[in-house]
Amino acid sequence: MRYQLYYWPGIQGRGEFVRLALEAAGAAYVDVARRAGGIDAMLRLRDSPSIAHVPFAPPFLRAGKQLIGQTANILLFLGPRLGLAPASEAGRLWTHQLQLTIADLVDEAHDTHHPIASSLYYEDQRPEAKRRTADFLQHRVPKYLGYFEDVLGRNRASDHYMVGARLSYVDLSLFQVVEGLRYAFPRAAERVERRHPRVVALHDRVQARPRLAAYLASKRRIPFNEMGIFRRYPELDR
Amino acid sequence: MRYQLYYWPGIQGRGEFVRLALEAAGAAYVDVARRAGGIDAMLRLRDSPSIAHVPFAPPFLRAGKQLIGQTANILLFLGPRLGLAPASEAGRLWTHQLQLTIADLVDEAHDTHHPIASSLYYEDQRPEAKRRTADFLQHRVPKYLGYFEDVLGRNRASDHYMVGARLSYVDLSLFQVVEGLRYAFPRAAERVERRHPRVVALHDRVQARPRLAAYLASKRRIPFNEMGIFRRYPELDR
Repeated sequence: MRYQLYYWPGIQGRGEFVRLALEAAGAAYVDVARRAGGIDAMLRLRDSPSIAHVPFAPPFLRAGKQLIGQTANILLFLGPRLGLAPASEAGRLWTHQLQLTIADLVDEAHDTHHPIASSLYYEDQRPEAKRRTADFLQHRVPKYLGYFEDVLGRNRASDHYMVGARLSYVDLSLFQVVEGLRYAFPRAAERVERRHPRVVALHDRVQARPRLAAYLASKRRIPFNEMGIFRRYPELDR
Repeated sequence: MRYQLYYWPGIQGRGEFVRLALEAAGAAYVDVARRAGGIDAMLRLRDSPSIAHVPFAPPFLRAGKQLIGQTANILLFLGPRLGLAPASEAGRLWTHQLQLTIADLVDEAHDTHHPIASSLYYEDQRPEAKRRTADFLQHRVPKYLGYFEDVLGRNRASDHYMVGARLSYVDLSLFQVVEGLRYAFPRAAERVERRHPRVVALHDRVQARPRLAAYLASKRRIPFNEMGIFRRYPELDR
């Protein structure tokens, strides 16, 4: 199976959670919109009247005849196929539950710089962004990271992974969240990481995996920038 | 199977999407936190060190030995068990994808009155709430409802349902979204509904189902109020 991923080519964004799973598994895939004419192909597909399962927004994934949207849903589909989710239904639901909690954190990270409207520039909502980010860094990030630290501690199989004793897609996503927080809020991230050693150790373990290390050093990994979800605006970092 | 639902007893909130599925299917369930001592029982369960699959926040559902959190994940689990999701994997993923898009809309509806921080009162973020709500009503609600209208139109089996030719949990959730928009923004909702006749017809069809009608007329249906997700602040309704 050669997967086709459709996502905006200039950012990591939500598509990166899917890219990390495909890369960690060594899966064959095409990042369609990064090819010449790829954005047009993506928008044509999304707007095609012949598609029954029309996605609301990128990312979406084509797998044979199936077209699947919503980041967490794509990972729910890919998990067992890539060996990145448990075999049992209960284990898959638990993995997905954690992914949905990461998705909530990612939504909140986005809204730090766009608390009023995605349709407006950051510069048009800067005072509100400062207020929202202060709350995000003071209350929300510790709450989320504290939760994931707790989940790791409760994992009877191994506190090296979020689910069971093997890598799952949610480990990759938590790695990406730590990377994003470090990029966007380097000062706040340094402080909050001290209290979450299991999360940091998981991040480091993921980063050191050969396939991941090769991906992160390659041109396939788009650098963080101020168009994605995690943006570095120094005035927001306390 | 007698399900145990854990959710805040004073609001519809995210728990209502689960309640609607249980009620529409005539399932046996206990709304634990609405009983005497139920909130304590909910918090004790959430904080119990013996739980491996600890939820981040209510709602969560107990089904035998399983404890499942995240609203959309609970519905993913319940769908096939309650006859409210297709049998095929592709059909279940599509239903779930739509539910995740509804969850995004619900998050945005919440943030209209809390654009800065959930930890602050509405009164402490009213100017920001006005700006965010204006964008929500002008751009986001039409985009989401337009999408669901399109999905209904593309359903080859029947434009009476979102998925296939039978009721699924996502129909119930879309009903709830329309109810919430009508409560929170009666003027804006009236305007936007005119352009989305299939969505309105689906709402009316759900509402007329005998089990749903009985539930909505019962005391089990908590009225909308200004502690939930959809809140009526007249100054926000254009």
